[in-house]
Amino acid sequence: MDKNEINVGLIGFGTIGAGVVEIFNKNQNILSKKCKKQVNLIKVADLDITTDRGVEIDPNILITDVNEILENDDIDIVIELIGGYEPAKTFILKAMENGKHVVSANKALIAKHWEELMETAKKNNVRFSFEASVGGGIPVLHPLNECLAANRFEAIYGIMNGTANYILTKMSKEGLAFEDVLKEAQEKGYAEADPTFDIEGHDTAQKLIVLTKLGFGEYVPQEKFYFEGITEITPEDIEFAKNELNYVVKLLGIAKQTNEGLEIRVHPTFLPKTHLLASVNDVFNAIYLVGDFVGPVMLYGQGAGRMATASAVVGDCLDIIFTEDKRISYGPVDSQVKSIKSIDDIVSKYYISLTAVDKPGVLKDITEILNKNGISIESITQKTSQENNLAPIIIVSHEAKETKIQQSISKISALKDVKEKIRLIRILED
Amino acid sequence: MDKNEINVGLIGFGTIGAGVVEIFNKNQNILSKKCKKQVNLIKVADLDITTDRGVEIDPNILITDVNEILENDDIDIVIELIGGYEPAKTFILKAMENGKHVVSANKALIAKHWEELMETAKKNNVRFSFEASVGGGIPVLHPLNECLAANRFEAIYGIMNGTANYILTKMSKEGLAFEDVLKEAQEKGYAEADPTFDIEGHDTAQKLIVLTKLGFGEYVPQEKFYFEGITEITPEDIEFAKNELNYVVKLLGIAKQTNEGLEIRVHPTFLPKTHLLASVNDVFNAIYLVGDFVGPVMLYGQGAGRMATASAVVGDCLDIIFTEDKRISYGPVDSQVKSIKSIDDIVSKYYISLTAVDKPGVLKDITEILNKNGISIESITQKTSQENNLAPIIIVSHEAKETKIQQSISKISALKDVKEKIRLIRILED
Repeated sequence: MDKNEINVGLIGFGTIGAGVVEIFNKNQNILSKKCKKQVNLIKVADLDITTDRGVEIDPNILITDVNEILENDDIDIVIELIGGYEPAKTFILKAMENGKHVVSANKALIAKHWEELMETAKKNNVRFSFEASVGGGIPVLHPLNECLAANRFEAIYGIMNGTANYILTKMSKEGLAFEDVLKEAQEKGYAEADPTFDIEGHDTAQKLIVLTKLGFGEYVPQEKFYFEGITEITPEDIEFAKNELNYVVKLLGIAKQTNEGLEIRVHPTFLPKTHLLASVNDVFNAIYLVGDFVGPVMLYGQGAGRMATASAVVGDCLDIIFTEDKRISYGPVDSQVKSIKSIDDIVSKYYISLTAVDKPGVLKDITEILNKNGISIESITQKTSQENNLAPIIIVSHEAKETKIQQSISKISALKDVKEKIRLIRILED
Repeated sequence: MDKNEINVGLIGFGTIGAGVVEIFNKNQNILSKKCKKQVNLIKVADLDITTDRGVEIDPNILITDVNEILENDDIDIVIELIGGYEPAKTFILKAMENGKHVVSANKALIAKHWEELMETAKKNNVRFSFEASVGGGIPVLHPLNECLAANRFEAIYGIMNGTANYILTKMSKEGLAFEDVLKEAQEKGYAEADPTFDIEGHDTAQKLIVLTKLGFGEYVPQEKFYFEGITEITPEDIEFAKNELNYVVKLLGIAKQTNEGLEIRVHPTFLPKTHLLASVNDVFNAIYLVGDFVGPVMLYGQGAGRMATASAVVGDCLDIIFTEDKRISYGPVDSQVKSIKSIDDIVSKYYISLTAVDKPGVLKDITEILNKNGISIESITQKTSQENNLAPIIIVSHEAKETKIQQSISKISALKDVKEKIRLIRILED
């Protein structure tokens, strides 16, 4: 930018917005020195400008009318941090149409309206940056898009939801049930009052959409791929996997090139304890990429939270100031994806956990069904029967096709001696 | 860059140079699409142009006269991959003076001649990029400098030498002696015939110089800080630390802001098994940064090797093409360092391993010395005596000042019942 002074307007004075204000309060001096320009935060808009956010702010810059930012000729960069689809989308499009660069952390909006947002930015010759939308403070979109640009990506695996990872870590360490940990996480503020978005996999799916577009050039909307949350995971499964199989469970977003097309899916996954992703605990996130030249790369840090996310938002502002003319075309220009593979066609090892009446012939019936479907078994463990003469049975399969597994499970569920719902967890070993 | 075609010249057709050629062979199409410009590798200079490097190359572009690159008006970007101080430095400076952007992986040169290289790039208005010089294929310098630019850094810890990490991992997993693992690593090509540079800590120190400049704005030459390699580590220390203390050993480069100045040092370090860096094994590298807003971030991948390093080199070329006008001022413009702290002044926990005659009074003499120096002991373990009535003693101290530890060790070494050299390993717990 040619001007010596860059002015920033912030829409949304919530948790992350307050973090952005705090960075300007504390580090404005180094920001301006790095850019060799004076960088100012000149307006902060929110409907509520009276609640104390715990940060110092000049009351004169706090406004309720967002048009004082969107229509302000002095503002060069607009930060959108209100989240959700509307009015966030209207504000962003208007800012772009008025020639302003936009920085956002709004993964829901970006994942849903990718094309329209990118088109509008391009048409108006402005930058649109959203490093904070995936992995919070973790540098991932820029490295994927720039430092690693020489690569074709083979796979992307991400632990991208802090709430889910906190719950799974706690269940694993303390042997607690999902509901109990969720309740505690809500009390501590690690989980929302309505946690659906996090624990049912929506948040991870939205982030995976962004990564898939940047990594493989293909936009795959959420309704086009399989996603599953962590609500069905039991402490028994976690315990058995830990002690008997050397696995830990993580909610993974997976996008992977195969000869039969792109796999894209979100589900709880068992990983060997020795996998680096297995050491990513609590609210931390990590994205594990595999490039054809660079090999595996992992980027780790805080995937959410006021300070970490604000760090990425302000980093994007600085990057725009540094490189206004660069206008990166996000991701590969053409899709590198031949087709999208259905979850039915994936090949994986599986962990199958069920409860059956402890009597002769049950194991035989189950293994016969698996055998008929061409599924070979790596291990089968029948535990001692508990109340009502019911015994837990745990089967680990060799690699098999999902559709065959699903067919087998339908048939096994229909056996009259099999009680309760069968639990299925996919295993990642590469 | 305004032109529609960008030409690259490569100096050095060795291991990494051949990797760069391979990327152009395989992914040139996506490189050009990403840049929206035709990107060509038009000259590759090396003194030896007859040895087969295992990659396809047009014989017409292979040359022995480097001036066909340095003086070539058609070449926009020069990649220097010959390593070492001279003639690499002369070539780089000449390329800059001729208006060419330069990409290099030469950490030795950059660590030693930082100021001169940066000044020359600035004076000639060209970019100088060297992502590959630290952490091979791992995106670290760009993220540190750009995505995380809103932060003041508190600490940087790096496992940055693949050879040293391979040896320590292997010693740890198989209980082997340093010399035996080194020999095997040399046979496998994981260690150089002369491994001094890697195992004595020079390579890690040079990379730490680059990170310290980018992270803290301070150039600290190698002769100004303490570095130590891994040659004195014994399998017994590793074994005891693993089983009794839950530590693993890593060769760490550490740069850390403290109230008394910047600590900068390289030495084998014990880390809790639960630390994410403790899971970085074999030839992998990782850089663990702590920023005031982003908190901890870890960047992990292959720190060396033909393909991974070439990925970073080509990534830098693309970045220059994207953003020629950006001319990033590397690191904070001013040093954020008040003073450089001597190794004597650091505070750490320590692991002290020694061998003494197994008789009454020895432990008392040792603990008295520690006590007089104000060092409190977390644990002391005397193992059963072995041949010659000698028993290994292992002491873990609470936090203490290095100078007090060194004084104590001199005195303990002088005790007539203490035999063999005392081994000291610093412990990192944050």
